[in-house]
Amino acid sequence: MEKIMIKNYEEPELNSPIFIGGLPGIGNVGKITADYFIDNLKMKKIADIYSEFLPPQVFIYNNVIHLVRESLYYKKTGKKHDLIFLTGDFQGTTQEGQYELSYSTLELLKKYEVSTIYTLGGYSVGKIVDNPRVLGAVTDKKLIKPLASKGVVFPEGEPAGGIVGSAGLILGMGTEMFSIPGACFMGETSGYFADPKSARAIITVLSKVLKTRINLKDIDEKTKQLEEITEKMRQEAKNKSSKDDLGYFG
Amino acid sequence: MEKIMIKNYEEPELNSPIFIGGLPGIGNVGKITADYFIDNLKMKKIADIYSEFLPPQVFIYNNVIHLVRESLYYKKTGKKHDLIFLTGDFQGTTQEGQYELSYSTLELLKKYEVSTIYTLGGYSVGKIVDNPRVLGAVTDKKLIKPLASKGVVFPEGEPAGGIVGSAGLILGMGTEMFSIPGACFMGETSGYFADPKSARAIITVLSKVLKTRINLKDIDEKTKQLEEITEKMRQEAKNKSSKDDLGYFG
Amino acid sequence: MEKIMIKNYEEPELNSPIFIGGLPGIGNVGKITADYFIDNLKMKKIADIYSEFLPPQVFIYNNVIHLVRESLYYKKTGKKHDLIFLTGDFQGTTQEGQYELSYSTLELLKKYEVSTIYTLGGYSVGKIVDNPRVLGAVTDKKLIKPLASKGVVFPEGEPAGGIVGSAGLILGMGTEMFSIPGACFMGETSGYFADPKSARAIITVLSKVLKTRINLKDIDEKTKQLEEITEKMRQEAKNKSSKDDLGYFG
Amino acid sequence: MEKIMIKNYEEPELNSPIFIGGLPGIGNVGKITADYFIDNLKMKKIADIYSEFLPPQVFIYNNVIHLVRESLYYKKTGKKHDLIFLTGDFQGTTQEGQYELSYSTLELLKKYEVSTIYTLGGYSVGKIVDNPRVLGAVTDKKLIKPLASKGVVFPEGEPAGGIVGSAGLILGMGTEMFSIPGACFMGETSGYFADPKSARAIITVLSKVLKTRINLKDIDEKTKQLEEITEKMRQEAKNKSSKDDLGYFG
Repeated sequence: MEKIMIKNYEEPELNSPIFIGGLPGIGNVGKITADYFIDNLKMKKIADIYSEFLPPQVFIYNNVIHLVRESLYYKKTGKKHDLIFLTGDFQGTTQEGQYELSYSTLELLKKYEVSTIYTLGGYSVGKIVDNPRVLGAVTDKKLIKPLASKGVVFPEGEPAGGIVGSAGLILGMGTEMFSIPGACFMGETSGYFADPKSARAIITVLSKVLKTRINLKDIDEKTKQLEEITEKMRQEAKNKSSKDDLGYFG
Repeated sequence: MEKIMIKNYEEPELNSPIFIGGLPGIGNVGKITADYFIDNLKMKKIADIYSEFLPPQVFIYNNVIHLVRESLYYKKTGKKHDLIFLTGDFQGTTQEGQYELSYSTLELLKKYEVSTIYTLGGYSVGKIVDNPRVLGAVTDKKLIKPLASKGVVFPEGEPAGGIVGSAGLILGMGTEMFSIPGACFMGETSGYFADPKSARAIITVLSKVLKTRINLKDIDEKTKQLEEITEKMRQEAKNKSSKDDLGYFG
Repeated sequence: MEKIMIKNYEEPELNSPIFIGGLPGIGNVGKITADYFIDNLKMKKIADIYSEFLPPQVFIYNNVIHLVRESLYYKKTGKKHDLIFLTGDFQGTTQEGQYELSYSTLELLKKYEVSTIYTLGGYSVGKIVDNPRVLGAVTDKKLIKPLASKGVVFPEGEPAGGIVGSAGLILGMGTEMFSIPGACFMGETSGYFADPKSARAIITVLSKVLKTRINLKDIDEKTKQLEEITEKMRQEAKNKSSKDDLGYFG
Repeated sequence: MEKIMIKNYEEPELNSPIFIGGLPGIGNVGKITADYFIDNLKMKKIADIYSEFLPPQVFIYNNVIHLVRESLYYKKTGKKHDLIFLTGDFQGTTQEGQYELSYSTLELLKKYEVSTIYTLGGYSVGKIVDNPRVLGAVTDKKLIKPLASKGVVFPEGEPAGGIVGSAGLILGMGTEMFSIPGACFMGETSGYFADPKSARAIITVLSKVLKTRINLKDIDEKTKQLEEITEKMRQEAKNKSSKDDLGYFG
């Protein structure tokens, strides 16, 4: 078999599209954000990507088997830039798989002449954050100023370890091998659980960058639920902390 | 070498065959079931499949070396659907191997124009089950009703984690890449040992689905032996439990 | 690079050669035996085999770097069967590597029209053996009787777990894919250290099978050294055992 | 994608160049040395090497994303031998990757007709060394004498385990497959941290071998900093040792 198998659904005519990648990862922030845009803007599917670089696994939804995959969706905006989103069940599970899947996606998108790439991810800070910032990193210095003006933060020396996985590779290979500039949006997150609050921070910034109107109602609800849970945990931790001097949820 | 090497024995003319896959896995339920049908219906070999995706190992039976393999067998039923069974010494041992072996098998069977795929496996419930159910999952919703009428159970939200390995992949790729509908039969099993009782439950259901007559004498014997062993364990556990309050075999 | 790179030294005309494989493994028995024949019969090199399936490592002998490899040697016997020996620094370190290296070696030898394959290995019995037997397993039943007459033992149900690695694969693929019959010679060994005594047992049997005269002086010396060491260990263990009731070297 | 992707910057005409490889490894000695020469001699870039054999990672320098890579630089010396240096963010992370990257680099350099290869690495001795020696190993015995005259030490039986990784492979494959002689320079190092002192020892020797003038000011500074730190550690260890009898920094 081909190591990566593309199943095409539609080949739309797109206007200088922006490509946004949001795969599962730290706090699942990238995937939550991408899925939210895909649902909210009622995007249409371009292709499913099956691969032996993904786990040898199927999910079962309502007794029906779903072979794990990554998927590309598009949205015609009627403006200067149409949109292409990448979401998926998994990132590649091996080093080789990470490179091959990222490269294949960029190659598959070549015909659409992508103008800019944004990738989405979580930035683990190891504690619950009340107001998560959205950190940025770019492959073209010119992108820093316009993104900063929309609320992306560019701190010195962060993240120290770089970026591991598709959010970094798609940008790195995007610039080096496909000459497409881009940026990574990293939402601060504890990293302990799927984090809609961090995703909400990215959604807010990204909708400004993409000039799209996104209804925040659903993500607000999920965020509220999470906040109630973490508030409870915080209280319990506080009670415990007053005895044991633990600052875990500080 | 080719990563997968096929040794063909016969290329029979088959009538719209049903393909049933039963490889080693949880409780060895799939393999026990497949081997039982192959022996009981005196099937003939189509091909042996050797591969570097299998362990680098040979077995020794009566001082004679047997290179590990998967094998395909067929049975002419004289009815609407002939049968093809897959059994084997191992599943692919890597993620890549799982995909490649499942895909290759489907490709090898293309010429037979398989009408439906059934895969067999165990569903680990973590305790000994008196009357194991046979759970189902399908790739085509239309299969649920007829299979349910033969005794396959379709519970909501089970199995929660999906299916890992060939039983899922053969179906997932079967539908997505070969457009063949199918279903997975999962026999409930403790998962602690090779489980003929769980296999017996599948054999009973599958023989109805396939409209074949299977002599249950041998599997009944093995099941009885297992029951005697587990009954003993249960008694011992009970004796122990009355002292230690352990509910392990509950 | 090619995953396996052959460096040819000579392409001798050989008379219906017997191919003997002795790579590192349990007790290093196979390699010790093969190297002993190669040295003792002053064999000439056919080829070196370099591969990314071997460790990414060089050895240093007298300040000179030696890239790890496997090597093929030959001996013209002047009799019915010439000899080809395989030795090496390592076996393939991955499952894929085991298959690929074994297959490549068989393919490389195709032009010599090998008549029979013998592979050599250790059979770990977990304790020190005074008179190690040489166990056999064959790919053609006809080989059992003549080999038994030279001292190879064919016990029922041993070794239970089959054979892992090149000693098994070369035979399994030799028969299934190259139609060359063969046998494995397994010297009983504790498996705790390189075991010249077990190798000596194979050398004795193999020299009968191959109808070669092998000077046993050097291996006798090494065996004696080992026996002195193990005798010391045995005494110490005995002294300890009389206090602690340990039967480790029993 | 190609498993190794070369991005060429310049294809200089070079005079019988010497190729020096210094990738990350024990004590980071090889990379520190190579980077020091590249900076100090203001070398120009020949090529970047991207590969799925490197980690799926990007670094971030001043908010700009840097896809991990290995890089080749050259220096026209105006003398008999020009220079080519290899540095990089990582060595290949798998066995296969080690072989493939080393081989590809040698193949890429074929057109330059490299005369000699030197590779650089650390030799871990497990304790802090006051005056690290530079140990040598060669692929051509003729190189021992001239290198020894420049201060390279060729002790008997060291290093016992050979060399693992690119420093060994580039030389081993350089001689076996490309017929280029060479030597490895191994600076003694504790192996506990990046060790500029060990690198300094190699820089001194290598600049003699290459007949280049290297300003040692920067490396002297780093070495001094390290020495102050290790002196402090030594004192603390001594204080502790006088109580606990630990000889760790002996």
